[in-house]
Amino acid sequence: MTSPMLSVCGLVAYDGSNYHGFQVQVGVPTIQGALEGALAAITTPASRVVGSGRTDAGVHANGQVIVVRLPWRHSVADLQRAWNAHLPPDISLRRLVLAPEGFHPRFSALSRTYRYRIDQYDPGGYPPPRRSPLTERYGLFVPRPLDLEAMRAAAEALVGEHDFATFGQPPQGVNTVRRIFEAEWRVVHTDLPPLDDFPGRRIVFTVRANAFLRQMVRNLVGSLLEVGRGRWSPDDMALALAARERSCSAPPAPPQGLIWERVEYPDQLGVWS
Amino acid sequence: MTSPMLSVCGLVAYDGSNYHGFQVQVGVPTIQGALEGALAAITTPASRVVGSGRTDAGVHANGQVIVVRLPWRHSVADLQRAWNAHLPPDISLRRLVLAPEGFHPRFSALSRTYRYRIDQYDPGGYPPPRRSPLTERYGLFVPRPLDLEAMRAAAEALVGEHDFATFGQPPQGVNTVRRIFEAEWRVVHTDLPPLDDFPGRRIVFTVRANAFLRQMVRNLVGSLLEVGRGRWSPDDMALALAARERSCSAPPAPPQGLIWERVEYPDQLGVWS
Repeated sequence: MTSPMLSVCGLVAYDGSNYHGFQVQVGVPTIQGALEGALAAITTPASRVVGSGRTDAGVHANGQVIVVRLPWRHSVADLQRAWNAHLPPDISLRRLVLAPEGFHPRFSALSRTYRYRIDQYDPGGYPPPRRSPLTERYGLFVPRPLDLEAMRAAAEALVGEHDFATFGQPPQGVNTVRRIFEAEWRVVHTDLPPLDDFPGRRIVFTVRANAFLRQMVRNLVGSLLEVGRGRWSPDDMALALAARERSCSAPPAPPQGLIWERVEYPDQLGVWS
Repeated sequence: MTSPMLSVCGLVAYDGSNYHGFQVQVGVPTIQGALEGALAAITTPASRVVGSGRTDAGVHANGQVIVVRLPWRHSVADLQRAWNAHLPPDISLRRLVLAPEGFHPRFSALSRTYRYRIDQYDPGGYPPPRRSPLTERYGLFVPRPLDLEAMRAAAEALVGEHDFATFGQPPQGVNTVRRIFEAEWRVVHTDLPPLDDFPGRRIVFTVRANAFLRQMVRNLVGSLLEVGRGRWSPDDMALALAARERSCSAPPAPPQGLIWERVEYPDQLGVWS
């Protein structure tokens, strides 16, 4: 009376505020640990959840992709429902499907897309504007002017295939060459009239690459913030990149502004269809 | 060596998730309690913080207004800095100024503006879309179609001076007549391309009135959701209003979607200028 083994692939969203990152670590709450713990409540023996990558402590995700092989005798929809019922409210399994033949959440990926959100207020008068608790859980509050055009110019220099050794260590091996397809700052305009009379704007950095080094997005954003503040010129960004030297990066931007939005797979795999 | 007494008026934003509402209650965390506790760390004797109104447990604010009379010998900017330094991260004192002569945060107010945010997903396929932890802290997740035109028609019937006894009890006295100046549903369009491929939209209800009864906004939204789901017609909303009977309201919408955005005062008071 053993259950048949299934390989399922899931889309996971989480608020990373209360977790020490994705990967299981002894004695601290992690996303992978919570996913496996919830699964252990509904299946035996324990199954290992494999993610498409790691996130740092405090980083969020809308589209982490996981795969797990487990014994299950009911439908995949039933598994999704049961698994979600055992997850804490800050983690959600948004999709769950049978994994395509040969699918691996990391090795099958073509690219990953991250976003970094900044709520930037101009200091109009004294004292300067104060942070708003309603925006800082998923964004960085910056109470000073930022030169967006300079940040855009600096970001452009990152697009293409480069050795990003300045901006992070590889998760394994020694290869620090990555290809960035898109690295763009956008001002978020919405047609909902603001009721908050603080002078400011929300800017969002979207970056998509074949893969990222550890802390690479946060180091890139930290360095782009130096450009925005006028401490670095856009050319300094290109020089930092060319140095291929970890010490040439600015400190990483804080984790709470970072959201892992999506993992892109080849269409022919038909992962979610 | 006593300090001079100051009356100051502040603009307070808070994430209400971890509080039992604004008003002080014994043995549970409240916004007023946290504000007074932080103040007690920097001034003696203890001072009472007076708000422009209450919020329920779990409701958020961008623009709660408070007034407090306290002994202080330094600048108001110093007081704001010191007070903020003792507040928890989910509460922020965004502005602090000397209170205008005769100012009262509640009685001087002309109107209050609230917003209720809904993330509405259309069930495309089976199983239906799952909640996203990144949007549900400040919004309600509704995984079904909502008839927005019907909700708009129903909201229109609320504008004007009416007896709102169906939708709440008065905070004091017996008068349940209030004047709604604006009650409008908007779809939030933003020029940031969505990376989330779940079919859905964010809709926001903005309501401004001279004053509100207890739980009135949540009861109005709860009833408008009945209209959106097709269980009530827009006319049923007008009938519920005309009944002036608490039992004729739908259950209140959950608190986490509600944000108290602003309190409006007469220009000539020059509160923040």
